[in-house]
Amino acid sequence: MATSPESEHPIKAYGYAARDPSGSLSPLVFSRRATEEKDVRFKVLYCGICHTDLHLAKNDWGITKYPITPGHEIVGVVTEVGSKVEKFKVGDKVGVGYLVGSCRSCKNCASDYEQYCPKQVATGGFTYFDGTQTYGGYSDHMVSDEHFVLHWPENLPLDSGAPLLCAGITTYSPLRYFGLDKPGTKVGVVGLGGLGHIAVKMAKAFGAEVTVFSTSMAKKQEAIEGLKADHFINSRDEDQMKAAMGTLDGIIDTVSANHPILPLLGTLATHGKLVLLGIPPKPLDLAAFSLIMGRKTVAGSNIGGLKETQEMLDFAAKHGITADVEVIPIDYVNTAMERLLKSDVRYRFVIDVGNSLKAE
Amino acid sequence: MATSPESEHPIKAYGYAARDPSGSLSPLVFSRRATEEKDVRFKVLYCGICHTDLHLAKNDWGITKYPITPGHEIVGVVTEVGSKVEKFKVGDKVGVGYLVGSCRSCKNCASDYEQYCPKQVATGGFTYFDGTQTYGGYSDHMVSDEHFVLHWPENLPLDSGAPLLCAGITTYSPLRYFGLDKPGTKVGVVGLGGLGHIAVKMAKAFGAEVTVFSTSMAKKQEAIEGLKADHFINSRDEDQMKAAMGTLDGIIDTVSANHPILPLLGTLATHGKLVLLGIPPKPLDLAAFSLIMGRKTVAGSNIGGLKETQEMLDFAAKHGITADVEVIPIDYVNTAMERLLKSDVRYRFVIDVGNSLKAE
Repeated sequence: MATSPESEHPIKAYGYAARDPSGSLSPLVFSRRATEEKDVRFKVLYCGICHTDLHLAKNDWGITKYPITPGHEIVGVVTEVGSKVEKFKVGDKVGVGYLVGSCRSCKNCASDYEQYCPKQVATGGFTYFDGTQTYGGYSDHMVSDEHFVLHWPENLPLDSGAPLLCAGITTYSPLRYFGLDKPGTKVGVVGLGGLGHIAVKMAKAFGAEVTVFSTSMAKKQEAIEGLKADHFINSRDEDQMKAAMGTLDGIIDTVSANHPILPLLGTLATHGKLVLLGIPPKPLDLAAFSLIMGRKTVAGSNIGGLKETQEMLDFAAKHGITADVEVIPIDYVNTAMERLLKSDVRYRFVIDVGNSLKAE
Repeated sequence: MATSPESEHPIKAYGYAARDPSGSLSPLVFSRRATEEKDVRFKVLYCGICHTDLHLAKNDWGITKYPITPGHEIVGVVTEVGSKVEKFKVGDKVGVGYLVGSCRSCKNCASDYEQYCPKQVATGGFTYFDGTQTYGGYSDHMVSDEHFVLHWPENLPLDSGAPLLCAGITTYSPLRYFGLDKPGTKVGVVGLGGLGHIAVKMAKAFGAEVTVFSTSMAKKQEAIEGLKADHFINSRDEDQMKAAMGTLDGIIDTVSANHPILPLLGTLATHGKLVLLGIPPKPLDLAAFSLIMGRKTVAGSNIGGLKETQEMLDFAAKHGITADVEVIPIDYVNTAMERLLKSDVRYRFVIDVGNSLKAE
């Protein structure tokens, strides 16, 4: 078992960590394991800031073990590979997302659904199989079993591509799984933040006709002109919602705040699917008749498996999909977190780790 | 527009009707339309009593127009066909279920999903396209456009087969649509009443491994010995529920009373589907995380289209599936309704209309 972050492993590492529920991040010296047979070690270049990082830093879910180094949208360059690594070599550009471990043997893992493996290990702040803590991408370097490392496509930007590793796959996977990836499909996207803006881009790349739902009329121009959405609906405007009744094949709902789903279900066509990606604090009210009349579905979806994440990166590279990002130095991270809490970012912060994180 | 039930159409009919929210049924003389080009007229032999009949008779949903003659699990023998009827001839055994009309041109209708057509006309107590009231199968004869008439398979009993026209298709359709119709599929059935007992039989005929959930331990023997279910779980027993965690591919939930769905979602495997058939009075509490962790689905489903209903009848005939019924004379109907309200029937009342309804 680990004794302290500084000493549990032989390789010294530097990063930023939260030490208490204030969530304030500050430099941390810790350690990472030596490169094992199947491990890929890489220098971190960029790391996106996901809302989950904020929840973990502040222990919003009551599961945080301090110190915690968040970050799971990590892009870097390989510096060392283990003796049995097959897919990577030194100098390769690589990515790591939300997972660094899973059992590799259960039904989920065998079906490339590592994201639903009950023994999965998340990238920052969780317990690895050897009993030590995982540290995320707000750090100088990473080490991971090659199964959880992605090839970075040649023409995909490192900075604005980083958020694809979480926000990208989280939206791509349900669009694919629920059949919302066909040209002409009518897809709604609820909420225009880190996840939502990527959902619009992914759905458009699949050829869907995209409707953005937002409570903020200020987002209309961003949605239509900036993200090329086809339609914009103010979800508080009853007339607009009524006009959209029964029209959509599916909705990707990215909102983590409490919100009513009954009006959204009304906009679905027969056999339409509402896919929840966010976890509102309170349970949602679900009226059974709203599902029965039209055989509609409410589902949830969580990131994606490794195979599909690679497929998504390749798809994004092919279609020129990146996140709209604000690149920041790591010492801006606490300000960035405060701004993120107020949704004051269009649409994702990405830390330029490679150029701004210096060993103390 | 209709003036009174007695005079709006040229053909005299006899039936039982409720006249006020007491729901008490008594004889009614009314009228039915003459046999039009595409119409099939048939003598009613048997009619099942569905819980919906009770709701409509008592105006539980606030949509009832009195007098109402319920009944939408109707089996009979053809007495007359219109000049352009193609599929039926005098003497044929036929069935009519929950629908006698739909627009025939919308996307739902074009896809054989008449059950989701927004202009659908239900069999008893609703308004037909000509503005007159529909009267259900608690009556001496019926007339319907042939599109909404089913061929009765040769070897399917008329009395115990009648409930298939609602309870049968309502359970068959979601099993098929949600892919729960494969041998070895693990299917749960919640509630062992009119719908639930048929769901068990259908799922078993598909080769599924069936688990019955009930709050009544008294149902265990019925489920296992009577209906050949593979497993029985007392849904109030936390240990039993815990042991079933993550095991089921899908659940058919037939319960119309308020009940928690979180424990049921817990018993679903990754990508598992909970299908609601009942409409509890209060909205269900839906915790988003319970769907996101395992990409699970909550859906609803309502009867089935005409093409699929015929397919279901043929499937039932082939596999010897009928409802467990108590056949009653029509003058027992009010007592039957009272017993139904107390779930005091194993599992469906069927009225022997042909032998017990006499013109006054």
